[in-house]
Parts: sequence; structure tokens; C-alpha cells
Amino acid sequence: MTIDTAGPLNANGVPLPPPEAQVLKNGLPSTLPDIDPSRLTIIRAAVLKFLPEANTLVFGEVPTDHMLYMDFSPDHGWSPPQIRPYGPLNLDPASSCFHYCPNVFEGLKAYLGPDGTPRLFRPQLNMERMVRSAERVALPPFNADALLILIKRLVALEARWIPRARGCSLYIRPTLIGTRPSLGVSASRHAALYVILSPTGPYIRDKDGKGISLLAMSDQVRAWPGGTGGFKLGLNYAPGFAAQRTAAALGYQQLLWLLGETVAEAGAMNVFAVFERTDGALDVVTPPLDGTILPGVTRASVLSLLSHTPLTAALPQLPTDVRLHTAERTLTMSELFAAAGAGTLREVFCVGTAAVVIPATRIGWQRRGGGSADAEVQDIVLPVVGGEGSLAHALWERLVDIQEGRIEWEGWGVPCDVAVA
Amino acid sequence: MTIDTAGPLNANGVPLPPPEAQVLKNGLPSTLPDIDPSRLTIIRAAVLKFLPEANTLVFGEVPTDHMLYMDFSPDHGWSPPQIRPYGPLNLDPASSCFHYCPNVFEGLKAYLGPDGTPRLFRPQLNMERMVRSAERVALPPFNADALLILIKRLVALEARWIPRARGCSLYIRPTLIGTRPSLGVSASRHAALYVILSPTGPYIRDKDGKGISLLAMSDQVRAWPGGTGGFKLGLNYAPGFAAQRTAAALGYQQLLWLLGETVAEAGAMNVFAVFERTDGALDVVTPPLDGTILPGVTRASVLSLLSHTPLTAALPQLPTDVRLHTAERTLTMSELFAAAGAGTLREVFCVGTAAVVIPATRIGWQRRGGGSADAEVQDIVLPVVGGEGSLAHALWERLVDIQEGRIEWEGWGVPCDVAVA
Repeated sequence: MTIDTAGPLNANGVPLPPPEAQVLKNGLPSTLPDIDPSRLTIIRAAVLKFLPEANTLVFGEVPTDHMLYMDFSPDHGWSPPQIRPYGPLNLDPASSCFHYCPNVFEGLKAYLGPDGTPRLFRPQLNMERMVRSAERVALPPFNADALLILIKRLVALEARWIPRARGCSLYIRPTLIGTRPSLGVSASRHAALYVILSPTGPYIRDKDGKGISLLAMSDQVRAWPGGTGGFKLGLNYAPGFAAQRTAAALGYQQLLWLLGETVAEAGAMNVFAVFERTDGALDVVTPPLDGTILPGVTRASVLSLLSHTPLTAALPQLPTDVRLHTAERTLTMSELFAAAGAGTLREVFCVGTAAVVIPATRIGWQRRGGGSADAEVQDIVLPVVGGEGSLAHALWERLVDIQEGRIEWEGWGVPCDVAVA
Repeated sequence: MTIDTAGPLNANGVPLPPPEAQVLKNGLPSTLPDIDPSRLTIIRAAVLKFLPEANTLVFGEVPTDHMLYMDFSPDHGWSPPQIRPYGPLNLDPASSCFHYCPNVFEGLKAYLGPDGTPRLFRPQLNMERMVRSAERVALPPFNADALLILIKRLVALEARWIPRARGCSLYIRPTLIGTRPSLGVSASRHAALYVILSPTGPYIRDKDGKGISLLAMSDQVRAWPGGTGGFKLGLNYAPGFAAQRTAAALGYQQLLWLLGETVAEAGAMNVFAVFERTDGALDVVTPPLDGTILPGVTRASVLSLLSHTPLTAALPQLPTDVRLHTAERTLTMSELFAAAGAGTLREVFCVGTAAVVIPATRIGWQRRGGGSADAEVQDIVLPVVGGEGSLAHALWERLVDIQEGRIEWEGWGVPCDVAVA
């Protein structure tokens, strides 16, 4: 299948009708058509794939039958959206996405509710973040609500792909790439926006008492003040691939990114640490959104649950006498090591869309540079790793119950109750 | 045209013959075939394009008739290389290049020598940097010499596209992108390597006494210690697009990236400043390669010319009594402003493959954050802007003479004296 990305797909004929007045920005005229769900066309795959077995699912490996696609040109604005069979993109080799990486993505999941309706989890937060990310790399703007309507339609069409097992879901990957076919180093005024889906199992089942090991990394740095760490940009990830191999060679599953010795993020997840006070209360700490940290949807949801009054309504799995003090503040490796030495570091856990909540089992750190396999790494071994009574366990249980629609909570679950054309 | 990038192109049939033992790295087996120029196939375009007029050339807008293409899979190694008609890439929408940006590029130029032979300028430096960049984002390794042989063949085939006018050239863009078709956040073990060409005019003619204005930017930061600023990665560029629009809105042509108030790079070029001592000698200063600065080929060549003994042999356009003290050291905005105030800042110029050497006319700086259009910007206006007697002018003249083959200098000019199959 060949797809022309040089302009609108003309699924409904050319020329486009006079556009309604729209306020677009990022250096583009305000009169161009925005995303218009009413112009959606659906081209169904002639043959549908067999569904993979739930226990064979590997994250992001198997795409579903269809994808959502539209593109933007400075002459025509956003093309009529199209749901069409999953298939390759056909792009000029000079396209910006290959050379300068103005590429944005999002990650969210669809779950099957008890009523059989697909549900999304706080998808507006993803859409708003995607608009902010697009602006950060000067890509064309778009209407976040319109994109969400289209994603709901795609998910509804692909509902048979949503695994029913607890902790399983259909991963949704909205992607926006610059497609300006020229080598000049400047903003891309052409873009393609597409959404692909992939069924996924649980990252690691928390009930198994498993977690992940982290290698704290300071000689390579993920993000910095004035950089792009606070946005969901593809370009934040490739710089970590080599360090990830270093971590694996040393026996760690994920990286814990530092800035100096300040904790930033773990792999592609936000980090929380739980300290015990002398009076038995718990300090729950996560790094603040200072521009170097991704403002994760799961992070925001965890903070919201932790600050709910009464706490037992938000997290009924916790012991009733638990007292929490939650703070967004700087967290350092020295602080973690000191607390581990004093026996007051109870838990460290990571949160994100893929894993939901996953405890850290141990954290390695080379205090001085290094990164080579022969440098000495000191380990923190965590005393509480998920399981009953842990904060990580209580949060995972609660979030999954909300995500899968067994519990309604503050409108976080959003049903895909749209008609499939 | 549809191109399968899922594996080798099988131009000579499958399966591939048993590979010779090769030492590959970046986490891949050492027995996979490397790039093999002897297996090149050439598919000529049926119809050749009309050449554009030299005075209409816009950088990177017009591709030539052919491109070089090969790809890598962890099963088959590097495919037989292919020169084929310029045309789109056909890529899975889950490919790493769109989502995580493990994308590397290079920029070099081909010039027509007086004997009519196409010439490259120190291309080994580009090839070696490309290998280092690939390793930084964990892409498959490749033989730099083999790639250079293939680039020479492509340039020789496309020699009619090299503009003959002084300062004009054929821009060469080798590109290496991750093509792993999976959403898991990890290194791409699949890649596509291609080379495209575009004829280009002079960036700005120095003889016109023109230069560029720079806006110093500290609230957004291009690179950081432990980041990727020292590598030629696409992901270093998109973060600057929005700031570039800010600069344009304020009337500046390019950005001057800072780290705090330390000078880093200008746009996509390295920076030099020239200070006058009380005894009339000149201090020529450029920031050191501390990992945040791109190790530019033009930068290295300028430093080499400046440190040559005798200087007049390297830069005959300079007045014979000029005395230079060249240093790679930290350069701050306060130092530039102080020297401008004292009348000792003579020149600031930028160097890079696209512009060769281009003087700065003025430098704006908002001392405190900002970046918005209404913040106050203080300007340095440079007293010497190119023209006879300036260092920028002497360097531009000399480098272009070497590049275009009118002068042989230390083997920097490399002829494309290869047979086109």
C-alpha cells in the first residue's frame, strides 16, 4: 500500500471546502482547517488478523488491524482523518522526522470494563500533553478534543483486541512527526499524525512480589534545565539506549536517571520514595516538575490518591492506621543511601502507563562517574518490595481497578461509547 | 516505488552467502556482514531531472536523481548497497526513528575541481564522526571506509549536479535511522542507511560584507554535560526550532546557544571570537570540545590553519604582520560584552559545512531568562564584519580555495576518482 504524505489524503475529493475560521498557532495561519472528526473515513481491512494469546504478549510487538492517520500541510491544514488498515508510511528521505527529530508521542491504554465497554484512563491529560509537546518542537497545533474523539472511534473499532485478563490492556500510541521534505534546519510546517494500537500484558505482576532493579546513572544525563525532559518527545529516549545496555551488562533492568546526584526519572517512569518517620508516619516523596521530569499521568494520579481525604477511601488496601505525608521535592542519592543505612527507607517504586506501579528491588550507584562494567557499584536493597501492606501494592490494585472500570473514581475512567461508522 | 525496509534488499538473491568474520559491536554479533562496496548495484533513473539554475538554489530543497541505500537487520547484517532513483522510504509506523529518534546524520559537500573531478573535503572526519554518533544512540556499527567508497561513487554518478560557481557545491547528507518495528523502549537493532544529495549555493556571500545576527539564548539549552551535544544526532536539532522562531521574531537570524552564560554553538555552527591585545596581537578563542559542542570539521580545519607555521602560508590573505594566539577555552557572554565595551572585541564568526565561515554582525542577549518578544535585549555590534583584512574573510577564501581544489593543502581535498559501474 502506498500512502501519499505530501498533502491531505483527499478522501473526500479536492479541493477542500473553504475552511472555517480556526485559531491555530506555532507560526502557522489561523485560517487552516483543524482536525475534523466529522470528516472521518474508515477503510476496513479486507482480512482481519488472528488475535495473539494473552500470555504471549510482548509490549509493542503486535499491531492491530487498523490505524488512524491524518496529515498537515501549511497550504491545506489538517487533512480529513482516516482509519485504514495498518501499514507502512511512505516518506520523503529528506523528511524532518529523520534528520531533526521533531517527533512527539503519547502512551495510554484502553481497558475492557465490566460492561464490555472499552475505557480510557484520563485521556485528556495525554491529549493536552501532546499539544504542549508539539508546541515545544514547533510542530503544527491541533485540537486535542477532536483527536480524542477519533481515538475513541479507533479503539471502539478494535475492541476485540483488548485483552480481558486483569492487568492486560490495549496500548495506544498517538504519534506526531515532522514531514517537511527539505534539509534546511528549521521547524517542520508539514506533519503526519497517526495512532497505532498494540495489545499488551502486565509489565510485571506486582502480586508475584517482583520488581525491577535500577542502576543510577550520572555520567550520562537524560534531561536538564532548559531542555526537553518535561515533554513527551521521541528525542528524549534514544540517548538512553547505550546506557540501558550498560545497565543490563551490570545486571540491572532499568536506569535511574540523575542530574548530579539528584534523582530524576527511572527508565521511562516517574519515581517515588517512601521514608519512615520516628513516629511511624510515612514520607512519600517524588521529584518536582521542574522541567526535567516528565509530567506523568500515573504520577499525577498517584499524587491525587495519596492526598485524598480520607485516605482509606482512595486506597482501601492500606492499613487503616497509615499516616502519609506526600511531597514533591528534590530527592538525592545521598539521601536514599543514608535512609537505607538508617533503616528508614521503606519503599522505592516507579510509576508509568506501561507498568502502572512497580516496586524497585535494589538500586545501584557508582558515586563517581564510570558506567564501565568494572567500576564499583554500591547497592541499596529495598526492605519492602510490593506485596500486601506496601504502598506500591495498594496503588497498583487501586489504579488497575479504576482503569479497568471496576471502580468509578473522579471521572478518571472515560468510556469509548462512540458509534463506529 | 515501494521499498521493503524489513530486511536486506536481496538485490543479488537470498539467502546471503556465509558472512566473513567481521568485528561488529554495539551489542550485535561479530559475524554479520559489514557494508560491502563490491556488492553495490545501481538502478538508474529512467528520466533525469532538469538542473536548477544556480542562483535559485535553496539549501536542501532539491534532491538529485539518485540516492544510496542499504539497511541492517540483526539476522542478515548490512544489505548489499544500492544506488537507485531518489524516492520515498517505506517504513513501519512503529519504527524507532519516529518514536525514539535514534537518528544520525552527517553533512559534507562535493566541489568541482579545476580538472573537472568532483572533490570532497576531509570526508574521513565525517565518516568517523558518524560511526561515533551511531554508537552513542546504540545503532548498528558500520565500516566508515566502505561508506566513503560508496559516497564517492554516488557523487561521481551525480557529478552533473555539482554547481560550478564559486562557493556553490553539492551538499551530501548521509543518514542513519533506527527502523526496529516495535514500540518497546530499547535500542534499535534494525537500521537504514541512506545518502541523499542536493545542490546548494553559498550560504551568504562573505564578499558582500554581510553576516548574520545572533540571539544568545540561555533560558533554553541545546546541550549539557553527559548529553549528546558532541554527536551529530538529529535529536539535537528539533529542540531549537521554537527558540529559532523567537529569535526571528526579535529580528535575529540565528541562535547563539549558551550554558548559563558560557557560549556553546551558534545555530548549527561552531563559534570563534577575536580579541585584540594591547600590543596589537589577536586572541582567537573557540569553546573547547567538552561534550556539549559539536566537533565540527570546519572548526578543526580553522584551528589547523590558525596554528600553522608560518601563518602566512596557511592564510595568505591576512596582513603579513598579524600575530595570532589561538585557544580552545571557555568563552562567556560577560567577556564578550566587556570586550565590546572596551573596544577590544574585533570579530565573532561562525564556522560550519553549510556556511564555511560567516561573520556575526551583532549579538543580542537577554541577561535574565526571558525569550519573550517584550524582554529587553542588549546588543553587541561587531566592528569588523568580514571583508578584506578580517580573519573571517581570510579563512573563508582559503577554505573555499582548498575545497574547490584550486589549492592542495595537507590532503584535505579528496577526489572522487572512482569508476561509476
